[in-house]
Amino acid sequence: MTLDSLSRDQLDAFLAEQQQAYADLQQAGLKLDITRGKPSSDQLDLSEGLLTTPVEAHVSGGVDVRNYGGGTGLTELREIFAELLGVPVGQLLAGNNASLSMMHDSIVFAMLHGVPGGSAPWKDGPVKFLAPAPGYDRHFAICEHLGIEMIPVEMREDGPDMEAVRAHVADPAVKGIWIVPTYSNPTGAVVSEQVAAELASLETAADDFRIYWDNAYAVHDLTEEHAKSADILGLCSAAGHPDRPLMFASTSKITLAGSGVSFLAGSPDNIAWYLSHTAIRTIGPDKVNQLRHAQFLGSPQGVLDLMARHREILAPKFDTVLRILSERLGPHEVATWTTPKGGYFVSLDVVDGTASRVVQLAKEAGISLTPAGASFPYGKDPRDRNIRIAPSFPPLQELTLAMEGLATCVLLAAAEKAASA
Amino acid sequence: MTLDSLSRDQLDAFLAEQQQAYADLQQAGLKLDITRGKPSSDQLDLSEGLLTTPVEAHVSGGVDVRNYGGGTGLTELREIFAELLGVPVGQLLAGNNASLSMMHDSIVFAMLHGVPGGSAPWKDGPVKFLAPAPGYDRHFAICEHLGIEMIPVEMREDGPDMEAVRAHVADPAVKGIWIVPTYSNPTGAVVSEQVAAELASLETAADDFRIYWDNAYAVHDLTEEHAKSADILGLCSAAGHPDRPLMFASTSKITLAGSGVSFLAGSPDNIAWYLSHTAIRTIGPDKVNQLRHAQFLGSPQGVLDLMARHREILAPKFDTVLRILSERLGPHEVATWTTPKGGYFVSLDVVDGTASRVVQLAKEAGISLTPAGASFPYGKDPRDRNIRIAPSFPPLQELTLAMEGLATCVLLAAAEKAASA
Repeated sequence: MTLDSLSRDQLDAFLAEQQQAYADLQQAGLKLDITRGKPSSDQLDLSEGLLTTPVEAHVSGGVDVRNYGGGTGLTELREIFAELLGVPVGQLLAGNNASLSMMHDSIVFAMLHGVPGGSAPWKDGPVKFLAPAPGYDRHFAICEHLGIEMIPVEMREDGPDMEAVRAHVADPAVKGIWIVPTYSNPTGAVVSEQVAAELASLETAADDFRIYWDNAYAVHDLTEEHAKSADILGLCSAAGHPDRPLMFASTSKITLAGSGVSFLAGSPDNIAWYLSHTAIRTIGPDKVNQLRHAQFLGSPQGVLDLMARHREILAPKFDTVLRILSERLGPHEVATWTTPKGGYFVSLDVVDGTASRVVQLAKEAGISLTPAGASFPYGKDPRDRNIRIAPSFPPLQELTLAMEGLATCVLLAAAEKAASA
Repeated sequence: MTLDSLSRDQLDAFLAEQQQAYADLQQAGLKLDITRGKPSSDQLDLSEGLLTTPVEAHVSGGVDVRNYGGGTGLTELREIFAELLGVPVGQLLAGNNASLSMMHDSIVFAMLHGVPGGSAPWKDGPVKFLAPAPGYDRHFAICEHLGIEMIPVEMREDGPDMEAVRAHVADPAVKGIWIVPTYSNPTGAVVSEQVAAELASLETAADDFRIYWDNAYAVHDLTEEHAKSADILGLCSAAGHPDRPLMFASTSKITLAGSGVSFLAGSPDNIAWYLSHTAIRTIGPDKVNQLRHAQFLGSPQGVLDLMARHREILAPKFDTVLRILSERLGPHEVATWTTPKGGYFVSLDVVDGTASRVVQLAKEAGISLTPAGASFPYGKDPRDRNIRIAPSFPPLQELTLAMEGLATCVLLAAAEKAASA
């Protein structure tokens, strides 16, 4: 029974039914939050060892891990993640607790000083970034904050719309593109080998074009299947553009979200460039935290084993979200949604023009959702239809209540729109 | 027996004697390093508890310490340092492991976005900083890296030469001044209440003038005496310039140099400003490390007790440095040096025009010293006489050898100069 197929009377009845359901929802006095991709405390408990196991200080690469120094980060930990990320240890840096900071700083350094292969600091001219959308709101916030103009391009199941990308990079002001290659935020898309190869070999008007390859969910599978990330460093090198990619990753959603370790990988020239600027702001990262991580994780397999335990906690939550969407919205054809095989989000597209209304209705019923449009540059979803669902943080019971409530809001907004047509 | 008072023959004999001593020094095949103000492993051992004591995760200010969030830092730790630094908790942020990063970032934010009270981003015009010298080389490196012109002013025993400061701040391009108020790097000077009050009430041409008050050694006494830092936030507020000071501090030389916690204090507007920019680069600092610190340090008194144990290790090293300087150089009047009551350095002034020669001689004898001029903007000591001595890192026996060797080099360089006059 799709809304299109209803008679006027049937539609009025359907609307009344949804209004009643929403009134009941408001009565329930909920206070639920499915806004952000935060790990739950159950997940954080998996890394209890980081809080309780003593570490033994030692000298690594000639530096006492407790003292100043060691700007590249602890070798033992870099070795584990070099293997997982498929990059040479010498081209991988380990930092403090936020890969977002590495992304931010690498763009700030580019603005103020320029990058290898470039002829001037980016601030000396207009700077534009391609922003595959829907995408990660914090990427877009960095651009907006730094006055970098974002050009939205469609994010598809295998990566960004490459025809649009090719057209835009003919503009020399286009200096970069954001990519979450694996289990993309929020759609769960995985950039295919072919799209990655096209990005690597792209002819760009800017000599200093950069791919910001944020591999935040490299090992964050939700099923038995593992989506291997394309080897962007290798592809770019082979295409004659070794300095094009900057790869980022972190343990924020492997160990402790607020106290993990971040990683940056790139060409030898990019690594030397990044270190030359960070050396001015710090005498080295927190190597003791890196040592704790190396000891706790042990090996690449140790990381994968830990991720399997995360999956045991996360998969049932995603299943619940997908089941409720399917049961409640499926019959009415008022929405489509992604079925991610990894990552932290489900991307929901409701009836065009109703996403803001859904988020508002949910808010008034005590359910916090990410603001409508958040996954688009400048917060502007051109079709006002996308809502990002973050199932990880709330306990299963709260998540169920929130999703049932969200479904009610989606149906009411759809009915309101159909009735007013 | 000063060199001035020697006859030509006596001088030649003295020179020959020093040349022989230096030849013997080279024979010894030393490999010693007194370049940087790094804590020794004995000092780092004092914070063993940070490596071995389990911490219990909990919710602080509504945020699980393990998870994302809590941009201001952990309240429990901020309370301890608010008392030690004499600032309100609400005006104190706790960050990651390097206060240098907070200084760097706050200047980068000012360059790119401007500061409260200013009318434009600093990058839109020429920017100059007053650089009391001798001073901290990493402060100067930030300015040089960001293209901020440094104007040296003399650092005296009670702070910068205020007459020079007053003259320079008539230039609206002068946006800031570096101050290490307590046990200054490298001279050990303590900024007096009076100089602090003058800085607070200074009439500056720039509306957005900032004092970068790097209180790195606030509790780092080397004697029973404690030099209380001037209350720069209070003084500036009272003078009608609440947004003028930004105060920095850290536990790098209290707990673990590479894995401590940094602090930033300022007016409510400055704190809101700083948070508005850091919120773009991170979802919060490492609160677990902050929790470890709060648990390990316990209270302001806990910090002071720990500092007393540092003093037990450091004071004998400083005594050794001063004893050797006095015994070896005193009789010849070829040098002057500071007698710091806290901090990490002894500042040595040798015969004008010989500091570079001394550093070179020492290097060729296997003794690494901070490059001559390092404590001056652009590495240029106008009198080529200053050498920064960092006694903390080497064991006492190595320090003794290094200082005896350094004395030999100072005497030889002085004799060479006198003989060639």
